[in-house]
Amino acid sequence: MDDHNSVPAVVELSGSACWALLRTTSIGRLAIWLGDHPDIFPLNYAVDHGTIVFRTGIGTKFSASLSDWPVAFEADGYDADEAEAWSVVVKGNAEEVLKRQDMMDTLDLPLHPWQAGIKDRFIRIIPTALSGRRFAVASPDVWQTPLSGGRRSSID
Amino acid sequence: MDDHNSVPAVVELSGSACWALLRTTSIGRLAIWLGDHPDIFPLNYAVDHGTIVFRTGIGTKFSASLSDWPVAFEADGYDADEAEAWSVVVKGNAEEVLKRQDMMDTLDLPLHPWQAGIKDRFIRIIPTALSGRRFAVASPDVWQTPLSGGRRSSID
Repeated sequence: MDDHNSVPAVVELSGSACWALLRTTSIGRLAIWLGDHPDIFPLNYAVDHGTIVFRTGIGTKFSASLSDWPVAFEADGYDADEAEAWSVVVKGNAEEVLKRQDMMDTLDLPLHPWQAGIKDRFIRIIPTALSGRRFAVASPDVWQTPLSGGRRSSID
Repeated sequence: MDDHNSVPAVVELSGSACWALLRTTSIGRLAIWLGDHPDIFPLNYAVDHGTIVFRTGIGTKFSASLSDWPVAFEADGYDADEAEAWSVVVKGNAEEVLKRQDMMDTLDLPLHPWQAGIKDRFIRIIPTALSGRRFAVASPDVWQTPLSGGRRSSID
């Protein structure tokens, strides 16, 4: 995956390191195949027994597509102390949480919908592949984001 | 897209509002179809004349797949003053910047690679669809992210 370069290495992360990092944040992005193109949705998630769980009410089309195709979920972050960023990708299949006991357990998860509205469906991503990497970034500003409400970087 | 709810509305954004928001940050996520599954990559981008441009050296497989399938690019952010989050999705086709003049213009863009290494290829996403929305979030903490190096929310 990496190039033929000798600059600071990209460190591939172990599975346990990936899960540990996934537990440090709660916003990720889900990529799905929707008809004839990919789409991405930011969402709030929780790690639950080796799976990713999120709430949605985003629409029938969205929900239906989840069961037809594999999905990819990504979360990332920046460690200011180490000047390193990380990115973890979970690939797998999504399924709606339907069993009563499973649903009740899921309700206990610290899950907030990513936007206001009725988000009455719980989706669970069962991983088939997990990968993550940690890498130095040239400048912390590169990883700056307005997500935290901090200062914004203007690029034009 | 929204549910049958009466809680604070999701505001669909105009094209110009979408572009304005895309210019306020420089990290986004690209969703592509890679063989038999979707994949996501965080990357540093710039807005350039109604297109999204980024640098990559991420690998032949990645680059080749870009020209075969439509892609989706997403950026999002959180406005602490308004307690609102936004998300903009650009769908379109990706093509490598190959013409000399185009390449020279691109080199002037304030683009940093998303990780250290040789990122000698420029990719441009030509939009076929642009959509964005702004929405209230229940709690700003929901949108908290370690990307800025700030405090982290532990969800378990």
